Amino acid sequence: MSTGDDSGLTEETVFTWGAPPLKFGAGASDEIGHDMAQYGVRRVLVLTDPGVGALGVPQRVAGNLGRYGIEARVFDGVHVEPSDASFAAAVEYAQEHGPWDGFVAVGGGSAIDTAKAVNLLTSCGGELMDYVNKPIGRAEVPSQGLKPLVAVPTTAGTGAESTAMCVLDILSMKVKTGISHWRLRPALAVVDPLLTMTLPPEVTASAGMDIVCHALESYTAGWYADSARRRPEERVTYCGSNPVSDLWCEKALSLIAKSFRRAVHSGAEDVDARTDMLMAATFAGMGFGNSGVHIPHANGYPIAGMVKEYRPSGYPQDEPMVPHGQSVSLTAPEAFRFCFPSAPERHLRAAELLAPGMERLPDPAEQLPRALVGLMSDIGIPNGIGAVGYGESDVPGLVPGTMKQQRLLATCPRPVREEDIERILLSSVQNW
Amino acid sequence: MSTGDDSGLTEETVFTWGAPPLKFGAGASDEIGHDMAQYGVRRVLVLTDPGVGALGVPQRVAGNLGRYGIEARVFDGVHVEPSDASFAAAVEYAQEHGPWDGFVAVGGGSAIDTAKAVNLLTSCGGELMDYVNKPIGRAEVPSQGLKPLVAVPTTAGTGAESTAMCVLDILSMKVKTGISHWRLRPALAVVDPLLTMTLPPEVTASAGMDIVCHALESYTAGWYADSARRRPEERVTYCGSNPVSDLWCEKALSLIAKSFRRAVHSGAEDVDARTDMLMAATFAGMGFGNSGVHIPHANGYPIAGMVKEYRPSGYPQDEPMVPHGQSVSLTAPEAFRFCFPSAPERHLRAAELLAPGMERLPDPAEQLPRALVGLMSDIGIPNGIGAVGYGESDVPGLVPGTMKQQRLLATCPRPVREEDIERILLSSVQNW
Repeated sequence: MSTGDDSGLTEETVFTWGAPPLKFGAGASDEIGHDMAQYGVRRVLVLTDPGVGALGVPQRVAGNLGRYGIEARVFDGVHVEPSDASFAAAVEYAQEHGPWDGFVAVGGGSAIDTAKAVNLLTSCGGELMDYVNKPIGRAEVPSQGLKPLVAVPTTAGTGAESTAMCVLDILSMKVKTGISHWRLRPALAVVDPLLTMTLPPEVTASAGMDIVCHALESYTAGWYADSARRRPEERVTYCGSNPVSDLWCEKALSLIAKSFRRAVHSGAEDVDARTDMLMAATFAGMGFGNSGVHIPHANGYPIAGMVKEYRPSGYPQDEPMVPHGQSVSLTAPEAFRFCFPSAPERHLRAAELLAPGMERLPDPAEQLPRALVGLMSDIGIPNGIGAVGYGESDVPGLVPGTMKQQRLLATCPRPVREEDIERILLSSVQNW
Repeated sequence: MSTGDDSGLTEETVFTWGAPPLKFGAGASDEIGHDMAQYGVRRVLVLTDPGVGALGVPQRVAGNLGRYGIEARVFDGVHVEPSDASFAAAVEYAQEHGPWDGFVAVGGGSAIDTAKAVNLLTSCGGELMDYVNKPIGRAEVPSQGLKPLVAVPTTAGTGAESTAMCVLDILSMKVKTGISHWRLRPALAVVDPLLTMTLPPEVTASAGMDIVCHALESYTAGWYADSARRRPEERVTYCGSNPVSDLWCEKALSLIAKSFRRAVHSGAEDVDARTDMLMAATFAGMGFGNSGVHIPHANGYPIAGMVKEYRPSGYPQDEPMVPHGQSVSLTAPEAFRFCFPSAPERHLRAAELLAPGMERLPDPAEQLPRALVGLMSDIGIPNGIGAVGYGESDVPGLVPGTMKQQRLLATCPRPVREEDIERILLSSVQNW
């Protein structure tokens, strides 16, 4: 088949972008019955994790669906940090009790990503590995449209409600990968700040750093027009920074600057700060979900995956873990020092958005790292990978886990070699 | 049935927003075969108007579709400024030669809006008046999902590729109205600046003023949270200005400030200016399509509809007409004087975006009108409704046509009475 590219252009001039429709605001999650009824659905599966399930929100959503004549059942078996095994368990539950006309995901990225996978596999058939990104899976395209999925985030972090991908661990291969296709995007993002009021300060801080990294990595990702022209078949979800992703990420950074510290320190009473943070999370998702993330997120994979004995306060103490938002932010200051020469003006602008009015440092490459460590130390993020259990001697063991994430590193504005990652990790043992 | 609103909140806290996925850039329209193939379609109808059809772009799109094994036929009978009669003719053509698995609209707002209506009526059945906004029609909800529609704008103006509504004249009632539902939104907006290079300066200027008014009216529309809380059933497409529509409109105004004059005066050679203008049009559509427009657009209806002998240069001379972008902008300076007290800071910020660095006038209410007339006089927009054939004595005859547009006037940040519209029209006979 011909490529169909009639343009004859040799440089890249095209970017792509997509986002779900949005219903945003306090009380928005109390309208899901009406919203789902618009799709003419009769039976809906509500997916959540046990922690969120215990708070009663999914049951409240199910009750609201019932009031519109929609039969709803809650599956509260979503695994936090999902894997191929946990996806399979959720799919099995859905198949056993289905068929379903639609899905609602209530929770963090784990619940929303699990619902995306359940929707894909129950709508299109096949096996998980058919759809997982190459080279781990076969990256097949969904054969048809999926059922409507309404995504309801309960943390201000991942932005999974905005994106067209889901992330999972492949347990047998000890690797984190994903499924990425525009048909995975939720039919509607229902974003209700009232659901985030009771998040503990430590969770608010960590999840919020995920937003910061989404926005900063997207904003500093390679500019879409700097790559070679792609044929239509070659276009990928992550097309590099572009005018639309920039718009969302700039606004997300401004919201972060205004409200992150308040959300951590007095979030239980501060609806405005919670609203700004949840908006920042969704907006950053609208951005990075199309442009991409790079080194800090790539480093987050081994930092979280190879955890030793670190048990963060504010989280369940039953097993060691590095929360996702910590794992992706601990090397961010040093990563942005490394990326600075590729686009100095972007790094300076990002620093100004994140820390408006901050003094200009003699070395401009220090501006964004300084803004970041100022924020991270204020909100109680651990001081470097040393504070979550890694010493200099652990670094060589971490590097391969980062280098496996070529899909992310491809978005970096500079070529990244193993020795670059090693140096970034070594310099991130202590950040301030 | 219960309202399903469990929130117990009495003030409005919720806004809604939606936008189509976007493929933007020079040459983007040469990839439509690939994009349409993603939907598994076999037969696609390409809709256009005779003027655009004569340029060959729709045929080029059809050829590209053919290369992906998709049978495509071009219907070039779209009527500019469509009506119930012209919609019916297009629907009849589609039914006669259908069924179709998808649609591509190539042209201005008329082609894209006609394609939305054809898609609705061939996908869901029923009659046009079933779907037209109340009180003129029955405002029924589409019974199911529509077929994929790819919208390809060839003017930088209406932003119809971004919105979920179509506008038409009801000839027997001499009224302009629309159909508005999220299912009408195109499945994909393909926005290719190369298609706009040959637009004459007068068309560039007029269409560009439509963008300016979309952005300014959206930005100054009543703030969503200032209305009474709506039940989920009561939520409308136009929910008032909100954080997301603001984002798009602010950026559209910055692009306008940077490139509008260049696009008019040297657009044939200036790809960058054309790119900025088309981006501004799409972005403004992403904004106002969710927030709304108000007085200037409401006035545009009678100003265009009651045209006497005005024949604008740069347009076909066979019949009198006031181009849409002229009709909506001629009363804008005075309308924003009227709205200024409702939100002074917004009007000043809009002026600063539209005319960065403009001197501060003694009367702040004059800032935005001055920025507007400065732009309008620079690009050759007629100096007021007097310049398109209306004198003071015509104003009482125009007022009722504006007052009929209550759906738009509802978005105005101030209550609008007949005498307000009369005064605005009288003051707009000459703008500078």
